[in-house]
Order: sequence, then C-alpha cells, then structure tokens
Amino acid sequence: MSVTVITVAYDARMGRWQPDSRGRLAKAAMELYGERGFEQTTVAEIAKRAGLTERTFFRQFADKREVLFAGADSLQEVLVTAVADAPSSLPPIAAVALGLDAVAGMLQPGRDHSRERQAIIAANPDLQERELIKLATLGAALADVLRRRGVRDPAASLTAEAGIAVFKIAFERWVAETGEPDLSRLIRESLDELRAVTAAV
Amino acid sequence: MSVTVITVAYDARMGRWQPDSRGRLAKAAMELYGERGFEQTTVAEIAKRAGLTERTFFRQFADKREVLFAGADSLQEVLVTAVADAPSSLPPIAAVALGLDAVAGMLQPGRDHSRERQAIIAANPDLQERELIKLATLGAALADVLRRRGVRDPAASLTAEAGIAVFKIAFERWVAETGEPDLSRLIRESLDELRAVTAAV
Repeated sequence: MSVTVITVAYDARMGRWQPDSRGRLAKAAMELYGERGFEQTTVAEIAKRAGLTERTFFRQFADKREVLFAGADSLQEVLVTAVADAPSSLPPIAAVALGLDAVAGMLQPGRDHSRERQAIIAANPDLQERELIKLATLGAALADVLRRRGVRDPAASLTAEAGIAVFKIAFERWVAETGEPDLSRLIRESLDELRAVTAAV
Repeated sequence: MSVTVITVAYDARMGRWQPDSRGRLAKAAMELYGERGFEQTTVAEIAKRAGLTERTFFRQFADKREVLFAGADSLQEVLVTAVADAPSSLPPIAAVALGLDAVAGMLQPGRDHSRERQAIIAANPDLQERELIKLATLGAALADVLRRRGVRDPAASLTAEAGIAVFKIAFERWVAETGEPDLSRLIRESLDELRAVTAAV
C-alpha cells in the first residue's frame, strides 16, 4: 500500500517556561526516528538528545507519534481558511486550487523536513494508517467549507475528493523529484492532469 | 470524520467439513453487531447464535473484524479484473468506469447487507480506520492495473484516485437513498459530476 504523507514544517514556537523546548524536542525526535526508526526510539532518548526531561516532552506532545502529526492541524487550517476566503464568484474547484496553493506556500520552505518525515512514515504501517486518517479528515474539512460556500452535494464531496487526490499526487512528486521542485506548480499540473483524464471518456 | 464503507456481499461458500458454516457465522455476527454493537459482541456469542463452536469460527475468520472485511478482497479482484480486461482502445477513465460497473453489479443485490454493514462501521472509529485502509489499498491496486495497461504516472495515480472518489461518493448515496437506487447509475452520475466540477476552472 502506498500512502502519501502530509508534511508539516515542525512548529518551533517558544514554550513559556523553556525557550524553544518544543522545537528542540521535534528536531531530536526527527533525527532519532531517521537514525533508528520510529519504533526503536523512546521518549527518554528524545528528551536526552534535546537536553530536556521526559516531563517536558509530555508537556509539548501527547506521545512520540504526535511529533509527526502535530502540524496537520495547521495545514488544515491554512487550507480551510484560504478556501473560505476565496472570492465567492470562483467555482468550487478554483477555490480549492487557491487553498492548495496556500498550503504549498506553507510547505515549500520545509521540503527537507517533509522528505525526512515521509521516509519515517513510509517505514511504518501504523504511521501510514495515521496519515491516511489525517488525509481523510482533511478531505472532510474541505467538503465542509465548500458546503459553507453554498456548494451542494455531491459536488462538494467530489470537489473535495478531487482536491485531496491532486494534493496527494503532487506532494508525492514534490518529495520524490530531484532538484528544487515547486509544489505550487506540481499542484497546478496535477489538477490539469486530473481534468484531462476525467474528460477522456 | 466521514468515512465511506466498501460493502461486500458476505461469502456464504460451503465449508468442506460443515456445509455453510461460514455463511451462518457471518449472518449471526452481522445480527449481533447490529443489535449490540461490534465492540460488545464476542466470538463466543457469534458461534452460539450460529449453532457452531468458537473453533469453527476461527477456522473461517481470523477475528470478528474479518467478518466485515473479508469481502473487500473479492471486490478488489472484480474491479482489477474488469479494468485489466477492458478493450485496450479505451482511455484509462473509461476502463475504470467499466471496472466500477462490474463492482456495482456485484454489490447491487446485497444492498440490505451493505446498509447494515455501513451502520456498524459508522458506529466504530477503529472499523472506520480499517475501511479507509481498505479503500487506499483498492486505489493502489487500481493504479497498478492501469500502469499494466501502459498508463504512465501521474495519470495512472490520478485516474485511480478519481475512480475511488467516484465510487466512494456513489456508494454513500446508494446506501443513503430511499427506494431502490441503482449503484451503477449513481456511479455514472458521480463520474459526470466529477468531470463537471474539475472542468470549471
């Protein structure tokens, strides 16, 4: 089973009591997951490498899996906000395209992190399942915001599914390609390709 | 999170040592899941209602979840075979449409079972996750058979994703609508709708 990973730039916002403990923990966790594998890494080891305590880890993250998935909420928020704010004159798929472009702008600077994260997830079936669930949740949120724009079903659901499919394929190409591929361009190309393949009946 | 369920007509093929024990167990399990909920039902109770032993249950099914998902393999086989056998002159999306039509033919007679199964799955997050994974596996198999037909990526992946999206939405409408809706017609309508929404940029 091939599963796309939603990548997220890890959130290095300042903790109140310990500057940047969250960012240090996320960095240490990603290094260890990459070196030893996700399963083989303990929270104690992550805390040690970050020079912090396990208690501090659990103040920042529910568990070691959350380090990889915490950013999915920000991604969803960026997508939903951009679609909600798109000019009301735009057809639904164009509003979704604007939303995906906003997501691309958020992800583009963190491509190295995205690639590392995808490699970690690809090596672990449980993480792949979690990624699928996050993607389905993202699709449901996208359909909801389209309904709030007045799009009826099944058009709202189909447009959301199309948007998620386009994002998934463009993202896979983005992390796989050599050089400095542009996620925004790959999303536009995938949308054009989806239009071409569905038109060909 | 809204999750589509792939429905499957339960497999009542004859066991070698006990005629139709598989079918009786599946029927008893579905009844109990519907009455008490999936979590609250034990294998002992399923076996008792079917008038069989737990040992017979475990000869037929790996666990109580498999009763709900065993049919997904047949569905995948029907889809993949129909797409592989479609005339080579057909564009990829038309081959996928033929495959989905074959799946519709398989599912249509078991609509009551599909509705019961969907209600059971909708009530349990773990089953919803399993359903998502089955759907992703189906999409990966569909992309593979398209590649074997000579379709390149990203067209193969996008066509497969479009096919799965169309199936998911059509299936949801099929189990939700009153009367005697035709899954094959709903699939054609969803594909038309997908074409219309993606064209509107």
